[in-house]
Amino acid sequence: MSAVVDRAAIEAAAARIAPHVRRTPLWVLDSAVLGLPGPAYEVWLKLEQLQMSGSFKARGMFNRLLANTIPPAGVIAASGGNAGIATAAAARALGVPAEIFLPSVSSPYKQARLAALGAKVVVAGEVYGDALAASVARQRETGALTTHAYDQPEVVAGAGTLAREIEQQQGVPDRVLVSVGGGGLIGGIAAWFAGRSRVVALEPEFAPTLHEARAAGAPVDVEVSGIAADALGARRLGAIAWGLVQAHVAEALLLTDAAIRAAQLALWQQLQLAVEPAAALPLAALRSGAVQPRAGEHICLVVCGANLDPATLV
Amino acid sequence: MSAVVDRAAIEAAAARIAPHVRRTPLWVLDSAVLGLPGPAYEVWLKLEQLQMSGSFKARGMFNRLLANTIPPAGVIAASGGNAGIATAAAARALGVPAEIFLPSVSSPYKQARLAALGAKVVVAGEVYGDALAASVARQRETGALTTHAYDQPEVVAGAGTLAREIEQQQGVPDRVLVSVGGGGLIGGIAAWFAGRSRVVALEPEFAPTLHEARAAGAPVDVEVSGIAADALGARRLGAIAWGLVQAHVAEALLLTDAAIRAAQLALWQQLQLAVEPAAALPLAALRSGAVQPRAGEHICLVVCGANLDPATLV
Repeated sequence: MSAVVDRAAIEAAAARIAPHVRRTPLWVLDSAVLGLPGPAYEVWLKLEQLQMSGSFKARGMFNRLLANTIPPAGVIAASGGNAGIATAAAARALGVPAEIFLPSVSSPYKQARLAALGAKVVVAGEVYGDALAASVARQRETGALTTHAYDQPEVVAGAGTLAREIEQQQGVPDRVLVSVGGGGLIGGIAAWFAGRSRVVALEPEFAPTLHEARAAGAPVDVEVSGIAADALGARRLGAIAWGLVQAHVAEALLLTDAAIRAAQLALWQQLQLAVEPAAALPLAALRSGAVQPRAGEHICLVVCGANLDPATLV
Repeated sequence: MSAVVDRAAIEAAAARIAPHVRRTPLWVLDSAVLGLPGPAYEVWLKLEQLQMSGSFKARGMFNRLLANTIPPAGVIAASGGNAGIATAAAARALGVPAEIFLPSVSSPYKQARLAALGAKVVVAGEVYGDALAASVARQRETGALTTHAYDQPEVVAGAGTLAREIEQQQGVPDRVLVSVGGGGLIGGIAAWFAGRSRVVALEPEFAPTLHEARAAGAPVDVEVSGIAADALGARRLGAIAWGLVQAHVAEALLLTDAAIRAAQLALWQQLQLAVEPAAALPLAALRSGAVQPRAGEHICLVVCGANLDPATLV
């Protein structure tokens, strides 16, 4: 069931996690610097790929762990991606054990990061569903605290602290462009701005959880694949995000893998920012013309993660 | 002879280059975030590796080009590194031709960057001296405007705008840690702070131009090699820098290649910052204990460049 995530919950999360997460830079550039088409406008790059654990997920995972009593068995998660890395990093920082279940298809780069963070890594099955089932069985044995990648109130409220930080740093942008997988990030951002900024949802064409939810009138399972699947590859939009998105998000756009990859390379070649494909959707939306700002608009791009093998930028 | 580079020259440079260069982020972190030893203090990371052309050199090269009448032949430089890339980028932005001479030992990555910027690239000889001699002969034919990597007043004043920007963004730090090659960057920073902040010079053990100048009482030619030689491999400290450093820089420290490499990897693995070895000396100085801040100090690390093959971070 979707509990309420509102500004008060986000304020509480911000106070809770402040000693543990980083205040990431917000970088203001003219659109001309990026060679973007159309009239001149301001690009606000929220460099959240510099967050502790390499993605915005640290905000939600610290909030989840700090808002609950952690049993002796510690925390447990099923994730081959950024949520697992953030869970492991938060557990290590707080001195509690973490067990992370992942399928054998998980990227070797992210598996190595998990192990380096001191988590007990359990490879269970070939696909995510297998790993999830194994983690559920294990949790019943140990009583560990579960973290969900996107569909727990503490996780969504933690993600919302990113929007609060943008407002503190530079004010309320005219639009915020946000990548969507399971919806934890956009749910938190929508809850914070609550209509004061136009929040635009961006998905890869091969991972359209929100797009399909809007078509069906409710979250549904979708097939996911493509360039950003290891970060945006949730099969179904979260219930909490669905409630918040219906209330506060007007637009949901699909982007091609080619546009995402081109934007990822542009972020490296033009701005020296090493980011994973999931973090390049906002720039891809501007470069491809999917989003066409008016002159003088303030457009915030949430650059959400950098857990990549840097050799893939060559 | 060293012309005067002072705060007025830096203010003039800042006004001149403002439409063309980026205001790079200054990121404040607690020393604990980086796992640094000793008491808690503030680390100010000046993320100048995000500058246009991938290094601070763009500031000086734009100032050089904008402060002079550019002849029809355009600009000419001998450089296999960041100064050449910055010259080519500034020339392209201003719509004038650029010829860059470099030796065959230059990194293929930087050669490719030069070509991508539309410069005429001339490979002349095996070492830098050969390329320099060829560029001098060519300049006599064409009358092009030369840019020097570090020893022209406009270039040093341009570099000094970085210090002015730090002060605007966060105030005057207690110490500023700066990598030194030919000295253009530290000269400009020392000229701006002029004793108001403690400026610490850092050099690789295998490229000790300032260290040897201090030992000899004047700049002397040194042998250069090692991990950061493609950016800090000037053979002799610049005359302008020497004057400024004598006046305003109390400390010059040498760092091992191993410490520099470890700091470069830490910047990627802990902070997701992809930087070249030359940009890692400030963190190496903190990690190795060469610089030992007191509790509560504000230590500014100038992260000066990101012109690297990202595969080298793996």
